[in-house]
Amino acid sequence: MTVKTTTELLYAKKYAQIKKELNEMNSVDLAELLEQFSQESMVILFRLIAKETAAEVFTNMNTERQQALISTFTEKELKDIFEDMFMDDTVDILEEMPANVVERILDVTDKETRSRINELLQYPQDSAGSIMTTEYVDLKKTMTVREAIAKIKRVGIDQETIYTCYVIENKKLLGIVTAKSLLLNEENVRIGDLMETHVISVRTHDDQEEVSKLFQKYRLISIPVVDTENCMVGIVTFDDAMEVYQEEMAEDIALMAAVQPSDDSYFGTSVFNHAKHRILWLLFLMLSATITGTIISRYEETISAIPLLVSFIPMLMDTGGNCGTQSSTLVIRGIATDEIRFGDLFKVAFKESRIALIVGAALALVNGLRIILMYQDPRLAILLGVSLMCTVYLAELIGCMLPLLAKKVHLDPAIMAAPLITTIVDTCSIMIYFAIATHLFAL
Amino acid sequence: MTVKTTTELLYAKKYAQIKKELNEMNSVDLAELLEQFSQESMVILFRLIAKETAAEVFTNMNTERQQALISTFTEKELKDIFEDMFMDDTVDILEEMPANVVERILDVTDKETRSRINELLQYPQDSAGSIMTTEYVDLKKTMTVREAIAKIKRVGIDQETIYTCYVIENKKLLGIVTAKSLLLNEENVRIGDLMETHVISVRTHDDQEEVSKLFQKYRLISIPVVDTENCMVGIVTFDDAMEVYQEEMAEDIALMAAVQPSDDSYFGTSVFNHAKHRILWLLFLMLSATITGTIISRYEETISAIPLLVSFIPMLMDTGGNCGTQSSTLVIRGIATDEIRFGDLFKVAFKESRIALIVGAALALVNGLRIILMYQDPRLAILLGVSLMCTVYLAELIGCMLPLLAKKVHLDPAIMAAPLITTIVDTCSIMIYFAIATHLFAL
Repeated sequence: MTVKTTTELLYAKKYAQIKKELNEMNSVDLAELLEQFSQESMVILFRLIAKETAAEVFTNMNTERQQALISTFTEKELKDIFEDMFMDDTVDILEEMPANVVERILDVTDKETRSRINELLQYPQDSAGSIMTTEYVDLKKTMTVREAIAKIKRVGIDQETIYTCYVIENKKLLGIVTAKSLLLNEENVRIGDLMETHVISVRTHDDQEEVSKLFQKYRLISIPVVDTENCMVGIVTFDDAMEVYQEEMAEDIALMAAVQPSDDSYFGTSVFNHAKHRILWLLFLMLSATITGTIISRYEETISAIPLLVSFIPMLMDTGGNCGTQSSTLVIRGIATDEIRFGDLFKVAFKESRIALIVGAALALVNGLRIILMYQDPRLAILLGVSLMCTVYLAELIGCMLPLLAKKVHLDPAIMAAPLITTIVDTCSIMIYFAIATHLFAL
Repeated sequence: MTVKTTTELLYAKKYAQIKKELNEMNSVDLAELLEQFSQESMVILFRLIAKETAAEVFTNMNTERQQALISTFTEKELKDIFEDMFMDDTVDILEEMPANVVERILDVTDKETRSRINELLQYPQDSAGSIMTTEYVDLKKTMTVREAIAKIKRVGIDQETIYTCYVIENKKLLGIVTAKSLLLNEENVRIGDLMETHVISVRTHDDQEEVSKLFQKYRLISIPVVDTENCMVGIVTFDDAMEVYQEEMAEDIALMAAVQPSDDSYFGTSVFNHAKHRILWLLFLMLSATITGTIISRYEETISAIPLLVSFIPMLMDTGGNCGTQSSTLVIRGIATDEIRFGDLFKVAFKESRIALIVGAALALVNGLRIILMYQDPRLAILLGVSLMCTVYLAELIGCMLPLLAKKVHLDPAIMAAPLITTIVDTCSIMIYFAIATHLFAL
């Protein structure tokens, strides 16, 4: 159903038809549709959604709309929604809500759930514990496949996934059994004989980014989370891992563009906040760039003598910046995907040096030809050729080494991207350029 | 098992122990381990792997190693490996192998498989058809849950996933049934009553990037692929969708850094190829930057009169570049995540204009104070204040609009990133700067 047809039906008060059509949509599309209406219409539409999918639709809406809905909910409605919700989604929502709303939600949840929520809320942000859910199917190794399937039939509807079941003994994780092996094996086989005991698991305090990398590497659907005593406390499912991956990517890309990362979308961020996220880096980089300016001002005499020299500054600065951007970006990606480690520093530097030789020579050659044709001045061609080669060489080297050094001192390598590298390379290339120029033209 | 212990065991010829330890590892780790050995040792180790996992380990190795292994395989071994492999993995491998290897592989596959492989090989690169597999569980709507489970028991072992089964009638896709609902429902319920008929599907020629977005949006484990007549031809599973997502991200990031994207890893790319992927953009950008140089050379008299003016060029150029990078990166991300569309052009431009006002004013203020303190020259402060504000404004506007315009003319928005925007903004900011300077200082 589109926004337009829904609006028409709402206007005509054809609620029965709206209800029928809404309930043919899936929860993601429903959430998207509802978000486009005014609060008043949204509340009406939300009440027309089938009870079974209401919690899921609610989970998929943005924080602002969730808060608006909660403010119109009766205690009974609030209780129903949050009872149907998975634990990790509840915790996600609670983390975004103001204190009074959190209190209202906790008031309607039963004592046991409340204490589990409070436990989950205590895990550090960005840890495996903070994204896990406590709803999973646990089996005993003495069970048969028949008994295991009976248990899934009994409890499965409330679990986030039933496709991996966890074999537990004294709270400890012994192994996993997939729904596939339950379906493919005979009913009287023991779970203990069926389970896979080499289980990939994570600790509650592991970084969520590492968790998401395990999902990608081993193509998992879910991963068990254990505490320091190896007791099973929850699972992370692949949809949450994928979300983490996307968030981390967005964060890296923002940092690489010298923008302070934020969880909000482009349109969801106010003009003032956009400015705030950009201004500090810009100020820092602007003031750093004045160093390059200071170097230039030392060569005022040279410039007065040959003003033409100035006109090559943009080309030199841009080329240095671009080379630095290329090598730093590739190295930052390599670090993020675990291909490049700090131990590879010299290997990477050696590789980039050789690349710089080829690239620098090619650029110097093309530029030399251009200058000979335009100015018929071989000294100028030599000056720019040598400056370009040095700039390219330095840019590639700085570009590949700074991200690795940042990693070593536990900074995010992504901050060593284009903008910062450009500023550093600028200073170096201008120094080289004028130093060679004064020598070559004997100024 | 680590490389070191494996080497020791190999040297001591303790094959039985190696075999035991290898077979406790999972296929991803095994592939990673084997890749670190010389070809000779790798072949020995590979032969010690259990037959059931050999195909999976082989699938997880890189192309170079796969080719080396194939060259040592007997026809029988080749047949065994490729018989155990999923269709989509076979096609992936065939696409990377030289013609004579492809021929050897096709020779050992049976006629039916060969004709299915040939069909899959014909789908355009980057299409849903090229990443799908034809191995899935199909059910009839007249079956009961008991019959469906019996069918899964019979054919499930060879299918890439059994967690979503597809209800087919006359080759047409009627609906889907999840393993969860099979496990949670009574044995005599009919599949027709159980199936979900609002199925999200893709066409064989749909772009793989769009397919991967559907997985993220709807948190799918697999998605059915249908042809133009709505007949079901295969499925794409979430691991392949995740791989596509990663590839597309890597491609975008490379493009944004003015590097021609490639599928190979950093170390897997030769120095020459690295240089080749970078040089064209660098040349293009270098020659574009000479335009800025030409503009500067028109103001040689101004520069001779006040050489100090030159020292502010780097700051102005860098700030313009950084602002352009910030806005273009955010807009490129917004386009990639479908948040920003071409229709939002004016909305985005208006937002960026307001951001530019705040950012520009702040930068001009800080810089003005610095100039007053350092040079006690209010005219210089005004010149740079106005130039900075204009530069920031133009940079934000160009940075946000070019990616959207690129999208409109079906170019990849990622090419309108930092490097290109920087070059364009440079030209504009230098023009503004010198125009204001000649007026203000009456030169």
